[in-house]
Amino acid sequence: MPSTDPAEDLGLLAPGQAGSPVEAATGDAAYVRAMLDAEAALTRAQAALGLAPAEAAQAVTAAAARTDRYDVRDLALRARSGGNPVIPLVADLTAAVAEHDSRAAAQVHRGATSQDILDTAAMLVAARALDIVLADLARTADALARLAAEHRDTLVAGRTLTQHAVPTTFGLKAAGWRSLVLDAQDRLAAVRTALPAQLGGAAGTLAAFHAFAEADGAPADARLGPALLAAYAAETGLAEPALPWHTLRTPVADLGGALAFTAGALGKLAADVLLLSRTETAELSEGSGGGSSAMPHKANPVRATLIAAAARQLPALASVLYGSLAAEDERPAGAWHAEWQPLRLALRLTGGAARDAAELAEGLRVHPHRMRDNLDATEGLIVSERLAAVLAALIGRDEARQALSRASRRAVEQGMELDEALLEEPAVAGALPEDRLRELTDPTHYTGSAGALVDRALRRPGAALPQPI
Amino acid sequence: MPSTDPAEDLGLLAPGQAGSPVEAATGDAAYVRAMLDAEAALTRAQAALGLAPAEAAQAVTAAAARTDRYDVRDLALRARSGGNPVIPLVADLTAAVAEHDSRAAAQVHRGATSQDILDTAAMLVAARALDIVLADLARTADALARLAAEHRDTLVAGRTLTQHAVPTTFGLKAAGWRSLVLDAQDRLAAVRTALPAQLGGAAGTLAAFHAFAEADGAPADARLGPALLAAYAAETGLAEPALPWHTLRTPVADLGGALAFTAGALGKLAADVLLLSRTETAELSEGSGGGSSAMPHKANPVRATLIAAAARQLPALASVLYGSLAAEDERPAGAWHAEWQPLRLALRLTGGAARDAAELAEGLRVHPHRMRDNLDATEGLIVSERLAAVLAALIGRDEARQALSRASRRAVEQGMELDEALLEEPAVAGALPEDRLRELTDPTHYTGSAGALVDRALRRPGAALPQPI
Amino acid sequence: MPSTDPAEDLGLLAPGQAGSPVEAATGDAAYVRAMLDAEAALTRAQAALGLAPAEAAQAVTAAAARTDRYDVRDLALRARSGGNPVIPLVADLTAAVAEHDSRAAAQVHRGATSQDILDTAAMLVAARALDIVLADLARTADALARLAAEHRDTLVAGRTLTQHAVPTTFGLKAAGWRSLVLDAQDRLAAVRTALPAQLGGAAGTLAAFHAFAEADGAPADARLGPALLAAYAAETGLAEPALPWHTLRTPVADLGGALAFTAGALGKLAADVLLLSRTETAELSEGSGGGSSAMPHKANPVRATLIAAAARQLPALASVLYGSLAAEDERPAGAWHAEWQPLRLALRLTGGAARDAAELAEGLRVHPHRMRDNLDATEGLIVSERLAAVLAALIGRDEARQALSRASRRAVEQGMELDEALLEEPAVAGALPEDRLRELTDPTHYTGSAGALVDRALRRPGAALPQPI
Amino acid sequence: MPSTDPAEDLGLLAPGQAGSPVEAATGDAAYVRAMLDAEAALTRAQAALGLAPAEAAQAVTAAAARTDRYDVRDLALRARSGGNPVIPLVADLTAAVAEHDSRAAAQVHRGATSQDILDTAAMLVAARALDIVLADLARTADALARLAAEHRDTLVAGRTLTQHAVPTTFGLKAAGWRSLVLDAQDRLAAVRTALPAQLGGAAGTLAAFHAFAEADGAPADARLGPALLAAYAAETGLAEPALPWHTLRTPVADLGGALAFTAGALGKLAADVLLLSRTETAELSEGSGGGSSAMPHKANPVRATLIAAAARQLPALASVLYGSLAAEDERPAGAWHAEWQPLRLALRLTGGAARDAAELAEGLRVHPHRMRDNLDATEGLIVSERLAAVLAALIGRDEARQALSRASRRAVEQGMELDEALLEEPAVAGALPEDRLRELTDPTHYTGSAGALVDRALRRPGAALPQPI
Repeated sequence: MPSTDPAEDLGLLAPGQAGSPVEAATGDAAYVRAMLDAEAALTRAQAALGLAPAEAAQAVTAAAARTDRYDVRDLALRARSGGNPVIPLVADLTAAVAEHDSRAAAQVHRGATSQDILDTAAMLVAARALDIVLADLARTADALARLAAEHRDTLVAGRTLTQHAVPTTFGLKAAGWRSLVLDAQDRLAAVRTALPAQLGGAAGTLAAFHAFAEADGAPADARLGPALLAAYAAETGLAEPALPWHTLRTPVADLGGALAFTAGALGKLAADVLLLSRTETAELSEGSGGGSSAMPHKANPVRATLIAAAARQLPALASVLYGSLAAEDERPAGAWHAEWQPLRLALRLTGGAARDAAELAEGLRVHPHRMRDNLDATEGLIVSERLAAVLAALIGRDEARQALSRASRRAVEQGMELDEALLEEPAVAGALPEDRLRELTDPTHYTGSAGALVDRALRRPGAALPQPI
Repeated sequence: MPSTDPAEDLGLLAPGQAGSPVEAATGDAAYVRAMLDAEAALTRAQAALGLAPAEAAQAVTAAAARTDRYDVRDLALRARSGGNPVIPLVADLTAAVAEHDSRAAAQVHRGATSQDILDTAAMLVAARALDIVLADLARTADALARLAAEHRDTLVAGRTLTQHAVPTTFGLKAAGWRSLVLDAQDRLAAVRTALPAQLGGAAGTLAAFHAFAEADGAPADARLGPALLAAYAAETGLAEPALPWHTLRTPVADLGGALAFTAGALGKLAADVLLLSRTETAELSEGSGGGSSAMPHKANPVRATLIAAAARQLPALASVLYGSLAAEDERPAGAWHAEWQPLRLALRLTGGAARDAAELAEGLRVHPHRMRDNLDATEGLIVSERLAAVLAALIGRDEARQALSRASRRAVEQGMELDEALLEEPAVAGALPEDRLRELTDPTHYTGSAGALVDRALRRPGAALPQPI
Repeated sequence: MPSTDPAEDLGLLAPGQAGSPVEAATGDAAYVRAMLDAEAALTRAQAALGLAPAEAAQAVTAAAARTDRYDVRDLALRARSGGNPVIPLVADLTAAVAEHDSRAAAQVHRGATSQDILDTAAMLVAARALDIVLADLARTADALARLAAEHRDTLVAGRTLTQHAVPTTFGLKAAGWRSLVLDAQDRLAAVRTALPAQLGGAAGTLAAFHAFAEADGAPADARLGPALLAAYAAETGLAEPALPWHTLRTPVADLGGALAFTAGALGKLAADVLLLSRTETAELSEGSGGGSSAMPHKANPVRATLIAAAARQLPALASVLYGSLAAEDERPAGAWHAEWQPLRLALRLTGGAARDAAELAEGLRVHPHRMRDNLDATEGLIVSERLAAVLAALIGRDEARQALSRASRRAVEQGMELDEALLEEPAVAGALPEDRLRELTDPTHYTGSAGALVDRALRRPGAALPQPI
Repeated sequence: MPSTDPAEDLGLLAPGQAGSPVEAATGDAAYVRAMLDAEAALTRAQAALGLAPAEAAQAVTAAAARTDRYDVRDLALRARSGGNPVIPLVADLTAAVAEHDSRAAAQVHRGATSQDILDTAAMLVAARALDIVLADLARTADALARLAAEHRDTLVAGRTLTQHAVPTTFGLKAAGWRSLVLDAQDRLAAVRTALPAQLGGAAGTLAAFHAFAEADGAPADARLGPALLAAYAAETGLAEPALPWHTLRTPVADLGGALAFTAGALGKLAADVLLLSRTETAELSEGSGGGSSAMPHKANPVRATLIAAAARQLPALASVLYGSLAAEDERPAGAWHAEWQPLRLALRLTGGAARDAAELAEGLRVHPHRMRDNLDATEGLIVSERLAAVLAALIGRDEARQALSRASRRAVEQGMELDEALLEEPAVAGALPEDRLRELTDPTHYTGSAGALVDRALRRPGAALPQPI
């Protein structure tokens, strides 16, 4: 451990995200790279509009590409005095450019404010991370579609408020999980497409760009700002903002909401897998549960556990991001800084959860026999709703209710099947032949529109993946 | 106060929402009405498909319309044993129908589960509330558009991290506020349009509807469920869901996110108004500030205060709603119940904030002279960014920086204007004629692309209002 | 429903709290009463120090006691313009006093600011509510102590990450639940005792009281403020604050934390009850589960569900209250107002959860036979940890592990008991006589220190109940 | 940057905490060290009770001390399959012990579960971090005490709802800030002292320790568990728990609450510093503000900004920790895992904020002249409360109010001093001599009990620092 700075976070407390592509795409080095990308794009955009020499843009782009020159920990420590990492990074980038082209060094960060760079970098990082998340969600949705199709008619107990209610199908459960995943994809993809570059200069008027143009002798041009916004956005690959958004935090709030939605959607899948994996229920098991040497019977649902852990954290992180919408002035003292870590953590947790969800869905082992056994846990009472309806039509609602109630009590107390208990009720026995009664108490025949709903849900296509940035 | 149940909440602790149309649209009576609407729609939908007699649908609809028959407090108390208010309401509705048509009474709630009714009611209430919110946002956006246009070129200090940075315009601030309000409208309108009816029966398979059809002797029809979903949605005026969503809580999570966004967007407006209203700044004042008899100079920015209070609460409420996405089984034991109060409170707080924002924006008093005076608080230093750029081109970057730094210090310490201090710098005086220097230090000429950005932002149209439900 | 204002909240969406004593103690009428109590206490305190005539204090106290004079909804509506309900209440109280004693009317609210009254009222309401909560927690702890003692040695599966791990006892579970309830009592009682009165005047200096004394010709007295704080606190029954706490929100933040703790502690009980009540597990059932007419086998764990719903909301409400610690100036524009509804809701939800927990604990039905049956679900593997330890000592760690692993696999695959499978392992059979092996695989003998821990935990006494206010 | 794993978090997005002692005390390496400390303590505790050879305890302790053997990133990646980092760490520690003493290797982690080690490690890390935080809070409180004493009588405007209300003193503000810091110290110190070791074995019964004792031939001892808890706690330096607390999460919830309180308390200080530093107000400035090369007049309040950013995040993090109280079973599938990152982040953010607060308080520059100038911004109206009281006694309440109202209006509209405007009121001029009127309008004489309150507040002693662990 000698090379480990004691302050480092290497993922030890984050098994859900450790080693995931999203973790790598959102590390400090990824932010540094994205900030350098933003600086280079800014110089190129100015060159494209004739506001900077083309050679300067090349020099800055080249220096920005040598990411091994920038010491992340040193930047972090030097960020402290000014309160953000762009200030020391600009110094280092300027020095790097100056080594090869001292005149180009003056073009570095010219006209920009730290927030222009850090916000743009955060959007680049978010875009790169979301592309990975979206791909994992697509894998998850595909696996769930297969499960839903395969188990379209696999019976399982429908449970409400912890109790068996009426039968449903595992296909309908899986189709429901998939529909949430598709909803998450839709929300993330919409946010992803709209992620904007940031450029406003010191207070959102882009005035410094005008000042430099003026200093360079260019004629005043009221439309310089909008032109620069367009050119810069094009260079970054991000969307062009209508206005500088230093304190109009729509993109960050939207990210928070879409990520919380995604983690919650996967959290529903995890919650169900955890319950259906319980030793007494055992209808599902993870493809590769975490084992225990001392307890060989244990196969912990680790993937579902880690997804559930992420789902518990995202709403709180999103609440911080929504809270930062109320950002005062042209740059707030706190609300902006409060976004940085929660946004990164939200990306990482959701990214880890999406990876885990894909593995979970692809490896999920379904135990239809156990589902069928569990259905019988209430001795046939799980179809009492149906019997109540049919009997009411035959012998009247009150009579039906009483007979059913008596038979149910006997079934539970004496451990007999409901159909047998009902046959002991003269009114029932008189109204229904035994084979019809057996049919009515067979849960297989009481799944309502489950199949039709699965078919319909599976016709919904998955979201198209956005073009990687 | 004799008629007040001690448990009642009449808005005493909620001056932001008290008396607002959204408050009335979201009270307990409004929920009861919406639940009755849902029950009536359900019977009508069944009648439309031939699953219930048309007269029964009429009888239920008529009984549901007599909202004065239902004692809200009594329903609340009776909701306790089963854990939801639909159970006692169905009893009361059944009794009300039975008074006129005992056969129709059997049709009440037939096939449904409590959650079908309560979820549908929540969506109806949300839809009615959002229509009001959207109208108030439109008023707010219009007022802000007028302010942005009127003050397109009104100078004001751009402030970052609490300090004057460079000049901006009040028009750009107002255009920014409006853009957030339009973003909120977009998000709310999208959610509003998609609010679905809920219908799934006991466990989301709609099986009971099949059972009743079977009991009535109808042939089995696998597509009964989808047909019923469509008919029911049409009767309620809500969107048709692809699947029953008892534990697929997209609509509720989306509501939470969009409402938190809206409160945050208005919270940005409020945060700025509060700061610019401070006694020392005094650039804005509310149209009708809250007065104080003992302190006649006080004119409290009450509307902005109440909006800010709402903006502080919404992220937490949304976090509960996002958290409820991880809802287990076919009906969760807790996650669903945890949505009810936060959703209503989120609607009420946001509705109150939107009303306050409309009043605030329409009545806002702008004090351009005070803005101009405050701009001079730093003796001209607010344009030092521009001077640095222009001087660097003339006398070199290092020389320019040193001269500017010396002059700035003298300006601050001796209370002299920056242009005068700069004239004492030989290098500067030699490079720039005095009148050019005065022009460069005039903040009026240093607003960059503010005007162009305002023009562009104002070309964005407001959202169309949805059709009321 | 004609008398129901459409805006009213009568508990329809809050079955957890509807009809509870805490609900009544925290309604709008209770706040009005507490505000009137605060106003009367203030006048009496001034009279006690010779700053107001004794008759005036009597007149104000008498007028404040006629709570039926004050129209809560009207106060709520009139609160809107100034942003708080004290302003209209003072007007009404002044009018009420003036009817009998016009001179005394001038003493109403003399020297105070609205926040003095509303904060004091909130503390009075909180104190009255906490006394109820504490009593319900004491009932809950007592019931859990009885369960722990009765079931000190009742075997139940210990479950980790959803899977059976090793045996434990239901007594230890109950003792653990009780220890959390006692922790909650400790936290609430500490906060309860410290709840302070609020008095600071316009900006926390109590200057107006000096001004009135000066106007009345009294000599200047630098210690008037502290004396008044003490007298006022004594009149209210609350603690004396060291400083006016208009923006030092320790009491409110502490309330938030202690209430979130309490709801979470009860949420642990609820989470376990919900899981152990599941149809497949069925080790516990609520004394009176919510029934379903169409599904007679259903006995929903309604009390646990409502507790779980409260536990999901409290952390978010507490987060708003913690957030309001960062309250600017001498009275903040938003942070204070944002406390009002979350604090009341936190009291109500926790109060409802405590009532439900007492009922749940007192009525909980424990099914030891079912616990014993479930223990056998893994064919004896639940004691494999013990076997691994003992066998390792006898035949070496590697050999023991392999034999156990093979036998476990056979037990699971062939549905045989672990002891039988182990007897087929020659190394095991050679090292352990059959009866010793049967003893080792009997979960009854593998509960470690569970009994000793229960005994120790039950020696912890419950918290003393605070003196009611 | 070649040695930087792209996933690493080196503090780039956390300038508030980067380089702080708390950051180093809470890094992944610190957790690894604490986990190793826990493993070593466990073996020593067993040795102390005769359950393990003394040489084994020495061997494990020695191997645990060679922290450079353990590769943090590798552990993080291997943590993924089982869902926690203890599993791979035990493997590495066992291998390290085995290199020197193969028999001792069998003692590593003997009888424990992963959660025993990770929870104990988290408490050790928390204890070490809190000791640093408490020392920084003591520094902060001391600096604030000096400010309060020095500025006991320094006048400053009391501001409510953004507006000047009545005068107060800067000493009273500083005393209030200090009282919150002391409240935070009290809460953190109480939690710190109670931080318990964790030991329960697989499901909280400590049964494996009994099994190993049995395997070693020791007689059954029902009190083995409690004895081991005591010995283990003593070896770790943490408190002894009454019960294993795998799902009784009092310590973690309490940490969340106390840290949120602390960040909020410091957030109040930061909020005031930010407002009083605004360019127009300029009553305070940070000792070393963050500068801007292009805008030399800017001195950003960076320390206050970073504290404010922390205060915005802590309530959300605490909400996750409170939410994890509802932890099901003997080890929850998600609630436990969801604590790890929020707890660490809460420690880091609060630790950074405490460091910043100490620097802020020690370096804060107070500008009394500017405070005095700002007091006059309302032309004397800031003492109108006093005038209203005194004039009412002289000329009647109605007459006084009218005269004051007219004079106030003239003062504001014509920019004249309130005393001059009042002299134009005949009733006032007739009742008050001019010098008395001047005295009454001098804010210096209207600070009420501010001085007495400061004196009282400063008599409260700071918290004693806990003994370092």
